[in-house]
Amino acid sequence: MAGTTEESIKGRTVGRQEADQQTVAGHSDTQRAFLASLAAGLRPGQIAEDEATRTAYSVDQGPLLEPHLPLAVVWAESVEDVQNIVRSCAAHQVPIVARGAGTGVSGGAHATQGCIVLSLERMNRILDLNPDDETAVVEPGVINAELNAAAAEHGLMYAPDPASYKMSTIGGNVATNAGGLRCAKYGVTRDSVLALDVVLADGSLLHTGHQTFKGVAGYDLTALLVGSEGTLGIVVGVTVRLKYLPREVHTIAAFYQDFRSAAAGVLAVGKARVQPAIMELLDNGTLTQLDEMNGSDLQTRGKSLLLIQTDGFGAAAEADVVRQVLAEGGATVTTEASEEAEMLVELRRNSRGVEMDDEFRVGEDIAVPRSRLVDFVAELEAMADRFQVRLKVVAHAGDGNLHPTFWMDRVDPATDADALVRLNAALDESIRVGLDMGGTITGEHGVGQYKLRWLGLEQPEPVRELQRRIKELFDPAGILNPGKAI
Amino acid sequence: MAGTTEESIKGRTVGRQEADQQTVAGHSDTQRAFLASLAAGLRPGQIAEDEATRTAYSVDQGPLLEPHLPLAVVWAESVEDVQNIVRSCAAHQVPIVARGAGTGVSGGAHATQGCIVLSLERMNRILDLNPDDETAVVEPGVINAELNAAAAEHGLMYAPDPASYKMSTIGGNVATNAGGLRCAKYGVTRDSVLALDVVLADGSLLHTGHQTFKGVAGYDLTALLVGSEGTLGIVVGVTVRLKYLPREVHTIAAFYQDFRSAAAGVLAVGKARVQPAIMELLDNGTLTQLDEMNGSDLQTRGKSLLLIQTDGFGAAAEADVVRQVLAEGGATVTTEASEEAEMLVELRRNSRGVEMDDEFRVGEDIAVPRSRLVDFVAELEAMADRFQVRLKVVAHAGDGNLHPTFWMDRVDPATDADALVRLNAALDESIRVGLDMGGTITGEHGVGQYKLRWLGLEQPEPVRELQRRIKELFDPAGILNPGKAI
Repeated sequence: MAGTTEESIKGRTVGRQEADQQTVAGHSDTQRAFLASLAAGLRPGQIAEDEATRTAYSVDQGPLLEPHLPLAVVWAESVEDVQNIVRSCAAHQVPIVARGAGTGVSGGAHATQGCIVLSLERMNRILDLNPDDETAVVEPGVINAELNAAAAEHGLMYAPDPASYKMSTIGGNVATNAGGLRCAKYGVTRDSVLALDVVLADGSLLHTGHQTFKGVAGYDLTALLVGSEGTLGIVVGVTVRLKYLPREVHTIAAFYQDFRSAAAGVLAVGKARVQPAIMELLDNGTLTQLDEMNGSDLQTRGKSLLLIQTDGFGAAAEADVVRQVLAEGGATVTTEASEEAEMLVELRRNSRGVEMDDEFRVGEDIAVPRSRLVDFVAELEAMADRFQVRLKVVAHAGDGNLHPTFWMDRVDPATDADALVRLNAALDESIRVGLDMGGTITGEHGVGQYKLRWLGLEQPEPVRELQRRIKELFDPAGILNPGKAI
Repeated sequence: MAGTTEESIKGRTVGRQEADQQTVAGHSDTQRAFLASLAAGLRPGQIAEDEATRTAYSVDQGPLLEPHLPLAVVWAESVEDVQNIVRSCAAHQVPIVARGAGTGVSGGAHATQGCIVLSLERMNRILDLNPDDETAVVEPGVINAELNAAAAEHGLMYAPDPASYKMSTIGGNVATNAGGLRCAKYGVTRDSVLALDVVLADGSLLHTGHQTFKGVAGYDLTALLVGSEGTLGIVVGVTVRLKYLPREVHTIAAFYQDFRSAAAGVLAVGKARVQPAIMELLDNGTLTQLDEMNGSDLQTRGKSLLLIQTDGFGAAAEADVVRQVLAEGGATVTTEASEEAEMLVELRRNSRGVEMDDEFRVGEDIAVPRSRLVDFVAELEAMADRFQVRLKVVAHAGDGNLHPTFWMDRVDPATDADALVRLNAALDESIRVGLDMGGTITGEHGVGQYKLRWLGLEQPEPVRELQRRIKELFDPAGILNPGKAI
């Protein structure tokens, strides 16, 4: 999967290199001096200046607004490497875009003008995993799934599970405060991070947080850094709390004849006061895609699917309540332990990398208060009709976190000149309606670069100004991932 | 209980007023001008300048190092009141000590030189409780237990449950990032707070966070403010996430012949990968106290008690595993559903207000990594012997969060001149050993004023300096609870 993704990224960005002609054509004297100083602190294999590599590392999986190539790509292999790199950049006022696996979808790791890309993928060691303390200490480049595999040997798990968990890194998860499927029960990344090692904008190393589950000494700098998308510091070490791997898991697939009824099923489970580990809502567009990819016949069974997993010692009893509640709401519910349902969850879990967003296909990440799920879905469907764009929705429904994707098929500019205008109008409208319902523009993906255009709609100026001042305090020269997150 | 506490506070501080003769004797012209401007924005019943009231509100339940009386006590009844009060204070450079119920135990709400005390206890309305969204919006003065009572009507609960939950306020819980008994399973205050309304040092009103379960737009200002003990802003509104009230609860009381075996039982439950809702560890000193208070005979049954509650759909199955694991570790375990065990949990839950800390009795709040629980307890017992001080320990053992209390009985300065020296040596030593084991000086009570002396042992200067700069950014004149938290 990781290989596929990297190739996708490369394939996708090759066509964009023309836009950076001025950078590609050659460096200025200042840039050459900087690159020489940078290389002086690294071994040869740790820096690349060739165009192919710079292109491959110039973007993450988010929509791209303005292509740039980095001056170089560097791979840190130690905390000291990161400190040296940051000091070189600080001395030459060169922006640093830190990057894990590049699986972000908001453009938080897109290259900016004149930057270097600092890859942390080689810092991939699990430094400690203490099954009695139920904690682990990892370097930022450790893949989420690898930490989970190591924890599973002790009956433990690292709870945050973004759909990219087989390829994304813990450092990247921390940078975006990544969510995932089982957050409603187990929390988001911030809830699992106890302590951080962070290289600040001056190259100094800061340790925040505590090794214990609880700790309230001083301000919660750890929480401030989680989700800051590499704009306040570069995470070089993460202490996480592990949770107990549930021994029993029950999976339920409930098919509905329309999406709104399925969304109502989510609320019905909540009203029954049952907390599933996973509650994924898939609309007809998503079922169509799954059928096309897997040769299945999900569409013949319903227009929408609610996938629920209960886990732990009460999993069976909880599953019984869930099945009853959903059946009462008109769903066709699998009544026995269902291999198919488990397979569907796996498909959903591993759905990242299947398609890439671009200007004609934009996946969103709106969260709304749970009671508004049904209304919001109805509004989305109306928008798709009104703007003549295609829509599919998948949601971490337990959190009210929806991923609607608006897209256009085979757009021919000659016959459909305003296609992009309509697509963007649908996007803007969905954001506006989501915010009106008390929602947020990003539940778990981060603002990155792409969602900056909407941030002002959610956060008034005083909130934004306070964040700018915090950014200034941490990074007065503005070299850490400028133009992102806030 | 609240009444008892208030009386205790009054009784306790009356003897200390001599120390503030200069304040009590009369105000300077500047102070008089300030008080006039303050009163101008309030109704008569919202401000008190009499000595009895100022004395009663001059301290929380933490040990007092340096007594001060506030210039006045003011009761805000609205957000606008808080804004007006802060603006008056800002204009006159008068420090503000905000306060909920005054149940803090680190001196975070102790009056400082020349301050006013701003009580938020009258802002006690639950503004919204949405059972479908599973959220509530409350004013800061709402009592934790009252929010829980309102939530329980809908099968919901507000999870953080400090032992003071029957008297402490949500605002105070937010200020200290309060923990409690069921945190190991349900998280601390920060994990339940979605959004905050905060009056900043210039009197402006800031709204942080989101109404949704997930949200990653911008920096996590909410998490930064939670636990900041009124030093960055004054919380005037709190949006919380509610969790599901478990329908089934099983309670287990396990008696041990020594405290270390009981601590080992905590790890054994963890190794079985069962997550109890509550896991309280009580030593012999605590059992003695409970027997004295309640006429029970706990001491005849063991020298230490581990109280465990499992909850939710799997509660019975989890309780079975817990009983088996503990019995294998040498415990005498209640084998049937035990009313006594439930009564013991209630006693533990409501143990606040029974005794007050003072210079001869100091309760600590150290947390250590779970694997060090047994070692740390052994060290504490050795310290008590070595320094000839009395010790009792109660612990939220699932979190590794211990509350050792060191104290002296009937100290006679004539015969035991170095009693205080020994007590403080034991305190300092316990902190040092806890930190050496990877612990923290405060798991859930906050640094307040009393623990500042140890903060430098836990946090190196760069971490402290960064916090000072964040404080400066939020409160450049330093009027918000100066000399606390960082």
